[in-house]
Amino acid sequence: MSNQQTVQAIWDRLKALPKPTLAQLFAQDANRLELLSARIELGEDSEGEVEDELAYNLGGIRFDWSKTHLDAAHLAEFEQLAQAMDFDGRRAQLFNGEKINNTEGRAAEHTAMRGVGLDTSVEEAQALHQRMASLVEAIHEGALGEVKHLIHIGIGGSALGPALAIDALTRDGAMVDVHVVANIDGCALEQAILACDPATTLIAVASKTFTTTETMTNALSALNWLRENGVEDPYGRVIALTAAPEKAVEWGVDETRVLPFPESVGGRYSLWSSIGFPVAMAIGFDGFAEFLEGAAVIDQHFAEAEGAANLPLRAAFADQFYTRIMGAQTRACFAYDERLALLPDYLQQLEMESNGKSVTFDGAPVDGPTAPITWGGVGTDAQHAVFQLLHQGTVLVPVDFIASVAAGHDLDPAHHRILLMNCFAQGAALMAGKASEDGARAYPGNRPSATILVDDLNPAALGALIAFHEHRTFANAVLLGINPFDQFGVELGKEIAKSIDNGNATFDPSTTALLAEAGLAD
Amino acid sequence: MSNQQTVQAIWDRLKALPKPTLAQLFAQDANRLELLSARIELGEDSEGEVEDELAYNLGGIRFDWSKTHLDAAHLAEFEQLAQAMDFDGRRAQLFNGEKINNTEGRAAEHTAMRGVGLDTSVEEAQALHQRMASLVEAIHEGALGEVKHLIHIGIGGSALGPALAIDALTRDGAMVDVHVVANIDGCALEQAILACDPATTLIAVASKTFTTTETMTNALSALNWLRENGVEDPYGRVIALTAAPEKAVEWGVDETRVLPFPESVGGRYSLWSSIGFPVAMAIGFDGFAEFLEGAAVIDQHFAEAEGAANLPLRAAFADQFYTRIMGAQTRACFAYDERLALLPDYLQQLEMESNGKSVTFDGAPVDGPTAPITWGGVGTDAQHAVFQLLHQGTVLVPVDFIASVAAGHDLDPAHHRILLMNCFAQGAALMAGKASEDGARAYPGNRPSATILVDDLNPAALGALIAFHEHRTFANAVLLGINPFDQFGVELGKEIAKSIDNGNATFDPSTTALLAEAGLAD
Repeated sequence: MSNQQTVQAIWDRLKALPKPTLAQLFAQDANRLELLSARIELGEDSEGEVEDELAYNLGGIRFDWSKTHLDAAHLAEFEQLAQAMDFDGRRAQLFNGEKINNTEGRAAEHTAMRGVGLDTSVEEAQALHQRMASLVEAIHEGALGEVKHLIHIGIGGSALGPALAIDALTRDGAMVDVHVVANIDGCALEQAILACDPATTLIAVASKTFTTTETMTNALSALNWLRENGVEDPYGRVIALTAAPEKAVEWGVDETRVLPFPESVGGRYSLWSSIGFPVAMAIGFDGFAEFLEGAAVIDQHFAEAEGAANLPLRAAFADQFYTRIMGAQTRACFAYDERLALLPDYLQQLEMESNGKSVTFDGAPVDGPTAPITWGGVGTDAQHAVFQLLHQGTVLVPVDFIASVAAGHDLDPAHHRILLMNCFAQGAALMAGKASEDGARAYPGNRPSATILVDDLNPAALGALIAFHEHRTFANAVLLGINPFDQFGVELGKEIAKSIDNGNATFDPSTTALLAEAGLAD
Repeated sequence: MSNQQTVQAIWDRLKALPKPTLAQLFAQDANRLELLSARIELGEDSEGEVEDELAYNLGGIRFDWSKTHLDAAHLAEFEQLAQAMDFDGRRAQLFNGEKINNTEGRAAEHTAMRGVGLDTSVEEAQALHQRMASLVEAIHEGALGEVKHLIHIGIGGSALGPALAIDALTRDGAMVDVHVVANIDGCALEQAILACDPATTLIAVASKTFTTTETMTNALSALNWLRENGVEDPYGRVIALTAAPEKAVEWGVDETRVLPFPESVGGRYSLWSSIGFPVAMAIGFDGFAEFLEGAAVIDQHFAEAEGAANLPLRAAFADQFYTRIMGAQTRACFAYDERLALLPDYLQQLEMESNGKSVTFDGAPVDGPTAPITWGGVGTDAQHAVFQLLHQGTVLVPVDFIASVAAGHDLDPAHHRILLMNCFAQGAALMAGKASEDGARAYPGNRPSATILVDDLNPAALGALIAFHEHRTFANAVLLGINPFDQFGVELGKEIAKSIDNGNATFDPSTTALLAEAGLAD
């Protein structure tokens, strides 16, 4: 039997397994909760060498997948699938810095930034972080004069991570007021400019290639703003965050303010590199190191845990079950925490750009669906907006709930108590449903959810949460047999935009009419 | 043949129609663009009486559905479907203030707030708006002392609309600094509090029933904050926006600061009522009146245009085609305008809470999918995050692009030029695709999109955009035979949260363990 046949046979068996309801699954197995939930402690030394002395207990994270339709039989089949797809081998390639991004001939070494990976890569990452730490500390100590504001310019992976981490971790106040600007739409930069004093503002320009149209256009406009407002040497106010340091120097940034990161760190995995500079500016480098440390705990777990005990892999089993067997085209993430309002956006890129592919690792067409659409929001807001569909709609949506036991504020504890009760009640309600003779008031139930509960949303926990999703995404790619590290799908739109700009191409009648309406036709 | 059989026969014929590619559709019909795109002018007098003298040309909106798979044959069948589902009758009921929300025994009279509907309802709406205008103007003129900040507390429909409108329309500055607070998570209110000076802050409490847990909890905490910071009469700083004015008075708000709205205006359709108070505070009542006026133009169009010439109905034809015939579980909206960053969130509630149902108008189970998941983001940001999946993923996602010909900022015009070129290029690229022998670099194309292009994103255009989506949602509900105006699906979660709070119920092992981990078990 060829490996392809083996894989097909596993899928066939998976499809043929009985499909008890969630209530039946709990009734059938008294140990179900134990089988499908687990805690990871963040306080344990990760053996990463970034920053291994922690002043306090970082708490842990509970991962509860018991309200999904996985059972022991599914886990056993999925473990065989992982074996047939060479999960152990691909995982080893990831951590060993092999060129696992085969279409681009590159390794994917974001874990090395957290101290887990090939020795030489970890050493390089440490040196780069040391350089970043020195610059951050020098700026905090006044080396560039008074700095109150930082306009961080980047898009995609260069924006979503910093925006999320800063929003999540600086509710108590930030060491520097950071504004993340991504969109080419000047409204984005203009809003940041309005909130900043040019005399005390630095500009971070974040672009892996240092050629991204949006970022370079915004950077020039930001420098113009500084110049027009009396800053004599605007380039002297720029920090460049890039894998192409020579391009940044050529563009005008002094080498001392260029923070490079390795080519082997992909854009949507770059928050751990110098792209995290604005995070370190906002929370201090020690906080940033704790963030890396939290991610490293998950790296170690992912590198070592076997089969379904490996939590990102287990989550991928559920993801594959809902996508491939149950036909779900989406998965939703609802953070019951205002600080994680940007998490769904971050996960959208991570998961959809990584696995929204149609060909396997070898370039052959895939034989089924790849990444679903990741969407979501924050609770309890989303209860008053989209949960109607989750409870009574016709579309199956596997849901992840994320919450923190510790509150992130000092208001009346009733706020947090109600928040958490609602979070848990939603998972219970989706599963239990409620019968009614009145169709409009009936809830079918048997709708799946997973819950991730952190003790406290500190930098380590945020790092762990993100790393968990990175490895879950990778595990899904392995089960699908695809390369999660390229993104050729974004090129065609750029090419066509360029050909519009050049004015020497013809388009379909609709595009032609839109260009004319907007005054962009010649 | 029963009506049900007629409807089934239409669906069968629709499913059997040939499925040419988008390129073939354009090649087959030289008039395709004319057939499927149209402009609506906002400057024409809407015959609404709210504010019918406009000082300048408000521009228009282009609706281009030509890059969807609808063709003349589909339009003809869908027109028959609309007839079989009594579109004309249901539409007349809507505008005549009949109890079209049959499960709750209520009319749905949001259009009356814009001056279009039953005469008595329009008159009531005008009186309520007059009351609101007087209060807004009095506050602007200093009747409540100096007012610099407004904390608007509401959730769901009481939050998403004000947040969207204020973000979209106040980039040039607002008459009052408004903070919209929704989440029960205290982090939300705390962030607003940190940005406000208690001595110059008003609190708007927006709740249709004036009993919403989140809103009443946040309101009490906001009043505590005022009290603890030297405001002697915190209740004197509150404006209540509600359909239960007696409850607001009972709670402690003086009747002069209660702005009621009719019971027949649903939460997710309430932005046009006194729930729009913070918008009027931010942009002035004249701007708010223009916003209503823009919506009224679409109301008139929707009330009068027949068949596929009715643009919201035409959009619903495409929606039904992709959901019911092509199996799409989602629809995406990408606004190529930073000012519309919150539009996808708004549309999520509007569409998913309205049509995320499983039973028909009569309480019988539906025989196919109802609302898909609405998701999206802003361009160009989304190009660097999720467009990989749109171009090369395995999931069909019908996409709407929304853009404005006029820029919303004063920076280098290159920003806006690049923004629009990218918007149009994405639609062109999704349709055209690009062949390649290298699977990883091939784009299948034939992926649909619609484009809505406004001349200028002024209040009238925003009102029209939202009203278009309201009527599109209603049209979808009519074609599905469901009631879009109730939302019983949100009740079960609330009930279970309450039973957790009461401590007298037992739950599944997962929920029990989560409650224990969070310290919420007794």
